[in-house]
Amino acid sequence: MAERETIYESKEKRIYSTEEPGRICIHHKDMATAFGCIKQGVIKNKGKYVNRISAIAQEALEKGGICTRFISIIDEREQLCRRIDPIPLQFIVRNRLAGTAAKMLGVKNGTEIPNIVYEMRYKCENLDRPMVNDHHAVALGLCSYDDLKKMHTIAEKSNKVLKALFHKAGIELVDFKMEFGRDADGDIVVSDGVSPDNSRLWDEASGKVLDKDRFRHDLGDVAPCYKEIMDRLIKATE
Amino acid sequence: MAERETIYESKEKRIYSTEEPGRICIHHKDMATAFGCIKQGVIKNKGKYVNRISAIAQEALEKGGICTRFISIIDEREQLCRRIDPIPLQFIVRNRLAGTAAKMLGVKNGTEIPNIVYEMRYKCENLDRPMVNDHHAVALGLCSYDDLKKMHTIAEKSNKVLKALFHKAGIELVDFKMEFGRDADGDIVVSDGVSPDNSRLWDEASGKVLDKDRFRHDLGDVAPCYKEIMDRLIKATE
Repeated sequence: MAERETIYESKEKRIYSTEEPGRICIHHKDMATAFGCIKQGVIKNKGKYVNRISAIAQEALEKGGICTRFISIIDEREQLCRRIDPIPLQFIVRNRLAGTAAKMLGVKNGTEIPNIVYEMRYKCENLDRPMVNDHHAVALGLCSYDDLKKMHTIAEKSNKVLKALFHKAGIELVDFKMEFGRDADGDIVVSDGVSPDNSRLWDEASGKVLDKDRFRHDLGDVAPCYKEIMDRLIKATE
Repeated sequence: MAERETIYESKEKRIYSTEEPGRICIHHKDMATAFGCIKQGVIKNKGKYVNRISAIAQEALEKGGICTRFISIIDEREQLCRRIDPIPLQFIVRNRLAGTAAKMLGVKNGTEIPNIVYEMRYKCENLDRPMVNDHHAVALGLCSYDDLKKMHTIAEKSNKVLKALFHKAGIELVDFKMEFGRDADGDIVVSDGVSPDNSRLWDEASGKVLDKDRFRHDLGDVAPCYKEIMDRLIKATE
């Protein structure tokens, strides 16, 4: 591969240009952050597990008829993806109320709910990812009501696909984050693969937490749990 | 009037029972609070102005085909209203982004917007009125999606009626809070009258702030501005 230019870098990943302008490479690192980067640490081989898990998740979404930016796996830590123009909104899909939502609403972590909860947060430097709704997003000029309808529909469909995927691996998808972007044609596509970094994944049989909450709350065995998710997903999708 | 029992009391109002079980009396006080009761003070005769302004607003809503709890004015500080079962949600309707919304979204106070922004907050003791959306409200069992649709429709219609009312008085309705409850038949009704206590009202010609922001931000002339709103509304609706 020729000389690569870094387009974007965070604690957890680096995005490189490739020889083709419309394609980028996402490199997953072992660094983990939590509570808005207040907590940081290394989870050994996390980059490998996240790379593979998010690839499997995106392949499942594509099979389910949902457009993602994912093209293929390059190596253990890297994915080839389409370049997209990100929409600065973060969608959260909740099948139970856990984490910040449970705290905010004054209910027990993991509370079962009769409906699916969809939330949005506004990703903007200098702001603390405030929760917003469709009206705020339109008022800020981030997208149209029609775009939001499309994103909500994709989020709903993605939840069905991903719940089924993780269920095949004996894992409950408690909640997950989604982001979107526009591709070269202006179409809205999913811009991120679900992984234990941006979702809550509990063992269906025991209720054991397998995701980043292990790191957040010092539950130990972080890397083995990430590996277990990967191994179980590989086996389930063979 | 016979012995009255206090049903509810806050810094700004007191609700009494009446001889008729389905009817209550709302007494408006002169005490003002802001920033979640951190700031407190007396605005002389505020109770009188709020009583009259909110009565005019509720009469306008009723004329516009929107059900409120308001029956009639009893005296300078008191209104006779229907007893309702409150829904613990606070709706905020924004014709511009001002106050907490402007701060939260990182825009200038009073930013003009191409759409109307509707927000909801969950009123629950021990929680700091978190912003919620329809999905949270349903997950918490506060109401159904169908109820929310009704409330959103009423909020939209109320905004049109109230904007027109204040415009007749040369006042811009920048934003306002609304609450709802269920009446004896289970129908959803508006449970609160708009007043300078729960809205932003700017003089159309000069942009002068006439509402509670004068108290919040120590702009002075709080009582005269409340009185001015009342006088202009009385004149406009004569």
